[in-house]
Amino acid sequence: MKRDGSIVRIGIDLGGSNIAAGLLADGGLAYKCKVKTDTSSESAVLHGLADVVFDVMKACGLDAGGIDSIGVACPGAVDSERGVVEYSANLPLCGADIRTALSSAVGVDADKVRIANDADAAALGEYHVGVGKGTENFMLVTLGTGVGAGCICGGRMLSGRGHSAGELGHTVIVYGGEECACGRRGCAEQYCSASALKRQTKAKIETCERDGIFTSMKKLVADNCGRISARTAFIAAADGDTAAREVVDAYISYLSCMLTNFINIFAPEVLAIGGGVSGEGERLLAPLRERVYGEMYDRKRPREMYTRIECAALGNDAGIVGAAMI
Amino acid sequence: MKRDGSIVRIGIDLGGSNIAAGLLADGGLAYKCKVKTDTSSESAVLHGLADVVFDVMKACGLDAGGIDSIGVACPGAVDSERGVVEYSANLPLCGADIRTALSSAVGVDADKVRIANDADAAALGEYHVGVGKGTENFMLVTLGTGVGAGCICGGRMLSGRGHSAGELGHTVIVYGGEECACGRRGCAEQYCSASALKRQTKAKIETCERDGIFTSMKKLVADNCGRISARTAFIAAADGDTAAREVVDAYISYLSCMLTNFINIFAPEVLAIGGGVSGEGERLLAPLRERVYGEMYDRKRPREMYTRIECAALGNDAGIVGAAMI
Repeated sequence: MKRDGSIVRIGIDLGGSNIAAGLLADGGLAYKCKVKTDTSSESAVLHGLADVVFDVMKACGLDAGGIDSIGVACPGAVDSERGVVEYSANLPLCGADIRTALSSAVGVDADKVRIANDADAAALGEYHVGVGKGTENFMLVTLGTGVGAGCICGGRMLSGRGHSAGELGHTVIVYGGEECACGRRGCAEQYCSASALKRQTKAKIETCERDGIFTSMKKLVADNCGRISARTAFIAAADGDTAAREVVDAYISYLSCMLTNFINIFAPEVLAIGGGVSGEGERLLAPLRERVYGEMYDRKRPREMYTRIECAALGNDAGIVGAAMI
Repeated sequence: MKRDGSIVRIGIDLGGSNIAAGLLADGGLAYKCKVKTDTSSESAVLHGLADVVFDVMKACGLDAGGIDSIGVACPGAVDSERGVVEYSANLPLCGADIRTALSSAVGVDADKVRIANDADAAALGEYHVGVGKGTENFMLVTLGTGVGAGCICGGRMLSGRGHSAGELGHTVIVYGGEECACGRRGCAEQYCSASALKRQTKAKIETCERDGIFTSMKKLVADNCGRISARTAFIAAADGDTAAREVVDAYISYLSCMLTNFINIFAPEVLAIGGGVSGEGERLLAPLRERVYGEMYDRKRPREMYTRIECAALGNDAGIVGAAMI
């Protein structure tokens, strides 16, 4: 069944843990579902993609002929024109022809299946219907397990040779600093991701314990089943805890260093921050703007020219929405 | 006089010290000239621009009607569409309407006068007729007084809001490191420019003097009227001098850190190095490639996918040639 003449777009966010999918309607999601990602083989992943499409079709009363497009957001280097994953560090998809496999499994024309890098898709979602709407130059920087980024320059996605561009988390900001999984030392990801913030919080709690200094972070962690989260330091700092304040200040200093680098490079109209840490909202954004605006190269230009620093609007759905809009 | 039906393009490279101009013929320069830049006022700079055009016209037997285009490469943020300099840190040109001023001074139609940022123009020159020919994604990184960069992504110049993008020298690689004129600490420019290499050389010579260690760099400097150049350490290192070797190794380590950042961000097919330091050729490039290729994010992809790291082909003429090709 086709829905009242409107365009029927399905978006799939293929992650290392889950495959999430949804039906896009009026710029939002009419239906969402997800399955665990079976990473044992290429065909297992491809089966998972077909499964979520069937789920959406069933729940929304669609048949294959009624689908106008299916977009898949994949981690790694993706050749959008051929519909093929060129390189993926975390999933067994190197060389996988997602377009052909998914179109034949589901029964839609191959030219209706489109794929893109996951960070690019999320950026595309924010660019079309989120905080990037109306801009020409837009960046989404996601602070999660790592630091992801999607950049739209002059209305076009940054792609590079072999679709390898945009590894902004793997730019060194601390020469000779902490080891990164990519093999370098001092990558921004090691200082600015949510995982990095958790490590910094843990280290500070340990220092406090060792030196006999009180910190309310300890109780927050105990109340959270012993788990340190990316929120721990922010919550305690807002409550006046000195040690937590130091963690937050140091983190924001690293983060503003990285973001100022990005702004000096790309000069977007809007830089959006996504991922878990962005849940802090103005507690994060207000001090971040102050530091970035005090440091960026063209800060002497009129204020209305400044890059706007905002939280991403689509949250965890950005990948699905962006995929549906590829 | 029009030259045998070929297109007559004049390029002008407007610098803080000199205004250089030339006539482009068959991808090379048929004639070159330069004058000192009078930086006392906007009109003084604009007069200088007209003067070099008149010089080219006279020397090449051209009248205004025979000129097909005049391109001006300007430092700062440049609005190419309007032909106006939006912001310039080093020249009194903020808001200067170069297109209108130059076209009326010289007597050519305003739509024949085009302007671009100087680093962008040099990159454009290399992209069209130099080492970037045939690529879709290309970067020129210039190591001189500062670190300049022009980036072509997917066949289009990186520009950003208000034409402010591309300040790649002002990305921090050493968090909390040396002070930069831009107000930040640890900018790549402070470690990777020719000026930085000279400072590093000077510091090493002083350490050697203090500690009574022999270095052949001292004699090289004495033979060069007491002047340290960006070549000093490279020459002495090639000659087996240990202290010079240490300077070169440290410099290449910083430089490879910065360039790996750029490759992880932009993934160009070719990254060209220009400016004085690039005169070292393979002495610089061979160890640089080894380090960058050992560190860059997608190094596990086939070797033919790697970013090629080359010296710029057009040398000091890149600005004029690029300006002529705007």
